[in-house]
Amino acid sequence: MIPTTLHPSSTMSLHGVLPILPTPFTHAGAVDEASMRRLIDFELEVGAHGVSVLGFMGEAHRLAGVDRRQVVAVSVDQAAGAFPVWVGVLAFGAAGAIEQALEAEELGAGGVFVAPPPIQNDQAIFDYYASVAEAVEIPIAIHDFPESFTTLLSPELIARMGREIAGLRYIKLEDPPAPAKMGRIQQHGPDAIGIFGGLGGMYFLEELQRGSLGIMTGFAWPEVLVGVYNAFRAGDVAKAAATFDRFLPLIRYEFQPKIGLAYRKHVFHRRGIFATTFIRPPGMQLDDYGRSELAAVIRRVGLDLDTAGPHPVSVG
Amino acid sequence: MIPTTLHPSSTMSLHGVLPILPTPFTHAGAVDEASMRRLIDFELEVGAHGVSVLGFMGEAHRLAGVDRRQVVAVSVDQAAGAFPVWVGVLAFGAAGAIEQALEAEELGAGGVFVAPPPIQNDQAIFDYYASVAEAVEIPIAIHDFPESFTTLLSPELIARMGREIAGLRYIKLEDPPAPAKMGRIQQHGPDAIGIFGGLGGMYFLEELQRGSLGIMTGFAWPEVLVGVYNAFRAGDVAKAAATFDRFLPLIRYEFQPKIGLAYRKHVFHRRGIFATTFIRPPGMQLDDYGRSELAAVIRRVGLDLDTAGPHPVSVG
Amino acid sequence: MIPTTLHPSSTMSLHGVLPILPTPFTHAGAVDEASMRRLIDFELEVGAHGVSVLGFMGEAHRLAGVDRRQVVAVSVDQAAGAFPVWVGVLAFGAAGAIEQALEAEELGAGGVFVAPPPIQNDQAIFDYYASVAEAVEIPIAIHDFPESFTTLLSPELIARMGREIAGLRYIKLEDPPAPAKMGRIQQHGPDAIGIFGGLGGMYFLEELQRGSLGIMTGFAWPEVLVGVYNAFRAGDVAKAAATFDRFLPLIRYEFQPKIGLAYRKHVFHRRGIFATTFIRPPGMQLDDYGRSELAAVIRRVGLDLDTAGPHPVSVG
Amino acid sequence: MIPTTLHPSSTMSLHGVLPILPTPFTHAGAVDEASMRRLIDFELEVGAHGVSVLGFMGEAHRLAGVDRRQVVAVSVDQAAGAFPVWVGVLAFGAAGAIEQALEAEELGAGGVFVAPPPIQNDQAIFDYYASVAEAVEIPIAIHDFPESFTTLLSPELIARMGREIAGLRYIKLEDPPAPAKMGRIQQHGPDAIGIFGGLGGMYFLEELQRGSLGIMTGFAWPEVLVGVYNAFRAGDVAKAAATFDRFLPLIRYEFQPKIGLAYRKHVFHRRGIFATTFIRPPGMQLDDYGRSELAAVIRRVGLDLDTAGPHPVSVG
Repeated sequence: MIPTTLHPSSTMSLHGVLPILPTPFTHAGAVDEASMRRLIDFELEVGAHGVSVLGFMGEAHRLAGVDRRQVVAVSVDQAAGAFPVWVGVLAFGAAGAIEQALEAEELGAGGVFVAPPPIQNDQAIFDYYASVAEAVEIPIAIHDFPESFTTLLSPELIARMGREIAGLRYIKLEDPPAPAKMGRIQQHGPDAIGIFGGLGGMYFLEELQRGSLGIMTGFAWPEVLVGVYNAFRAGDVAKAAATFDRFLPLIRYEFQPKIGLAYRKHVFHRRGIFATTFIRPPGMQLDDYGRSELAAVIRRVGLDLDTAGPHPVSVG
Repeated sequence: MIPTTLHPSSTMSLHGVLPILPTPFTHAGAVDEASMRRLIDFELEVGAHGVSVLGFMGEAHRLAGVDRRQVVAVSVDQAAGAFPVWVGVLAFGAAGAIEQALEAEELGAGGVFVAPPPIQNDQAIFDYYASVAEAVEIPIAIHDFPESFTTLLSPELIARMGREIAGLRYIKLEDPPAPAKMGRIQQHGPDAIGIFGGLGGMYFLEELQRGSLGIMTGFAWPEVLVGVYNAFRAGDVAKAAATFDRFLPLIRYEFQPKIGLAYRKHVFHRRGIFATTFIRPPGMQLDDYGRSELAAVIRRVGLDLDTAGPHPVSVG
Repeated sequence: MIPTTLHPSSTMSLHGVLPILPTPFTHAGAVDEASMRRLIDFELEVGAHGVSVLGFMGEAHRLAGVDRRQVVAVSVDQAAGAFPVWVGVLAFGAAGAIEQALEAEELGAGGVFVAPPPIQNDQAIFDYYASVAEAVEIPIAIHDFPESFTTLLSPELIARMGREIAGLRYIKLEDPPAPAKMGRIQQHGPDAIGIFGGLGGMYFLEELQRGSLGIMTGFAWPEVLVGVYNAFRAGDVAKAAATFDRFLPLIRYEFQPKIGLAYRKHVFHRRGIFATTFIRPPGMQLDDYGRSELAAVIRRVGLDLDTAGPHPVSVG
Repeated sequence: MIPTTLHPSSTMSLHGVLPILPTPFTHAGAVDEASMRRLIDFELEVGAHGVSVLGFMGEAHRLAGVDRRQVVAVSVDQAAGAFPVWVGVLAFGAAGAIEQALEAEELGAGGVFVAPPPIQNDQAIFDYYASVAEAVEIPIAIHDFPESFTTLLSPELIARMGREIAGLRYIKLEDPPAPAKMGRIQQHGPDAIGIFGGLGGMYFLEELQRGSLGIMTGFAWPEVLVGVYNAFRAGDVAKAAATFDRFLPLIRYEFQPKIGLAYRKHVFHRRGIFATTFIRPPGMQLDDYGRSELAAVIRRVGLDLDTAGPHPVSVG
């Protein structure tokens, strides 16, 4: 496919906070378009630099093809070019990945973050990413998240892919210890690949200090991540650190495997963004104690569930 | 005691040899419709009781959605109702599995064999199969193959699903030791679920003796499996055993992980059925030595690669 | 073996902070007895309620049998009955686990925390723990840590083992989301089993609030965990929370997979307790940047690496 | 082309059939020394070229240290220098592996076959084997068996270890497809490492033709493997093939995961070698049907369970 015009995203230097969005559902379990639009509006309102849909937190693995298309189309439409919509790609093989990436591109995605193939062979992984990158014009990010995808990606392989595969420009790095792995990737050249953090923001400050471009992660209070990022970019590291530390008890609490999604849907529901807290089975549900425990942590960091709209997160 | 009479479950409608078909490709890597039609014709000619497409051996994990549709549609069209076409379903979650099962049903599949979800939780697995079974009218088989899918299914869970989920009627059993697991499933009632063997036919004779309904497996000489099955059904266990044992060196040789597909595509190519031996990456390729080694085993059991059409497999 | 006297620990109601101790080595890589004794003294000084040796953080998997014996013997000797020494058991099967548990008992251990066998079968797991519990008089804790041991233990199985296996009295719970799993275990009866937290202390406050008996975890500033625990036990939840939150940036930072041990050895070395930072291969080493990054976090929470002895951790 | 002459590496000292021995137990589950001595005598009588103890089939993972020592000491004593006793090493880390290897050496082992460390890092694996090899004088074999040990060893790494680590001279290759992997290892130089087959003998003939030195595997009729090997070494490939094919139905049947050990203990018991069929829990037990099924296969290949001593295996 020969592109005749420059893709709108191709001139962007991608950076900042691109939250991984949960997919809202109706009580019947269908994709809830109105909630999705409210979520996009909310992310715009808090100053997010983009959004990432169809990630693990977006229950992409629990969506049908028709659901996937709807999530991407609605997000792109609502964003209306105000910020890029990145789209997750998760497939059993290259043909399926290419199909998903092409669809995302056609729907107007700013880029795709692509899970590695489930095979522990460096050349096969390289070829997989190369084949996807060749199929689309939009930029590609590696999604390095072995807890979910099992595949291990060495710093050497990551740097090599960043340098040798045109279009593969970023990595969403979620292989702990993430800051240490950042360092090992950067030893292969500071510009080999652009690094975004993840892991719920647990190491966001340290990642910024090591030179990350930003973060793609789920967190139900994106204004906090934006606050940290903007303070850091403005050169006020102390403020960035104080903001990060103040909200860390909540960042840590939300970032719990399996149950984290339920926390976030609960918060988005209470904040007036999601119509329901529906999670597709077999996702873990929240019980009464869990809701109380979450509420206590939220109060402890000075936020509240009863006030609509972005919260002030300034410190000091 | 090894039984010499037919198992009561053998009156269930689905039975016999339903080979897992490799997907033929052109030299460019596209699905090769003409070869697919020749393969269906060949399976009809050798007396197969049906075919199974989009299994692991069919490289289903390396196909795009459009490829999947083509394989099913062409197979059903060429079979023209002469035997059922079963279709593999492999998805990351229930919504995707239902989408695939519905599509197979709409295209005329005789049934679907469904990989378990990648989650080690009995109730979640039950719910997964129940949701797929509820969505379609055609019968469903569990695909119990932990080597590929990692999920472990206990005999208790399998029997419970067979009894409690309407439409879930069969299992393609590939969790070794398969004959022993058959026995443990049957302890929960002989009619809980209809059992088909797999694993390349390695335990086909013993599985028939334990009451299996037949086999769904890849083997490039389906006339051998049909010969064993027909002799057994005709009550001639000695002939079934002699046929099985005669060709066992080849059954064993073809049934090697990762490389088995290359053997089968090579044989189908040499037998005049497949136009190419193309395997989508990162599938393991055959080298010269491997081709010679395979040819030597084929000769040792009295078959040859240069004669077209079904081979005689009678013994004694 | 018929015990003729009551074991000193058998009347203890185990509770509190029992840090998982790293194993100190000399520059040549041998167990460093002097450093081990200093570490025991330090834990006594900060008010720890016991210690846990030969855990994953103690590099138990990298020790020879002779090393294991030395670590236990030295720890018990230095503790001199002032607090219990719990000992980790990690084996490929029950015979090896019993051998290790008996040795720990003979050397004076207060109890053993036992990794599950590497088999995903509830009855086999039950039998494994029952056989170890039957072999010794000292109490036993399940070590529920699937990230390292891969075995998944359901809340039902854990509660059943706690009720039915005499001597199996505790669980060191490190299967996230840990607070949620605590809740699910407690649904089977509040007294089924005594629960200790782990996971670097990341959910220590919430675990205490849910009724945990304390914590067994690695952290190079045990005075912090003791401070949280003591405030909580004294009924001052606000102080416990404030202490926890203040030091959370460091708790989080130290609790990083693979590299966490290097942080802790570095801190114990700088605090004058360990003679070296030696880690047995293939343990991950700290680089200069990592040391700086760690130091920055330590300073941020108001601690310092240059002052010997326990640090004040009071807040508010 | 399939070679009909001997491979150059066949002049290496170690070669032939070195059966992996099950560990016999008394009815109480203790190591049964008398049965062990009878088994060694039997292996000598059938012409085995050595034996391998403390492998997976030897339930090494279910033995205590004291059991391990007994098995090795008794085997070496009974062999009395007539053939080498190879000893399996399985540990969580290098210190434990060295301890086991040294003990084997002191007890008179001819060599040790060493499981890889549970870490997917080539340099760490190399260092692990190098540290064991440096600690002992006896030769070392890699035990490449990912089904049990999970670690994947590339052909490149294997060849590099064979060339660069003095003392590491052999590999027991059980990573299917084993013949194909042999070919890929040999591409790095025919003398990089001496290769022994395993996997129950399933590919023994093809492995010999590719230049394997012999086989280390469990099979309750070692006279069959010796017959195949001796015919092949005598240049009578046709006889080797005919012998292999005749007994293949039984080779295949015994080689079933989890249950294979029960078959072998049953056969050794019936052949008058083992006093019991005891398997340490949680090993899978044989039921009545399984015993009948096994007996039927044994009869089918012309062997019988009621005649003591080695059976004639000549064909043609």
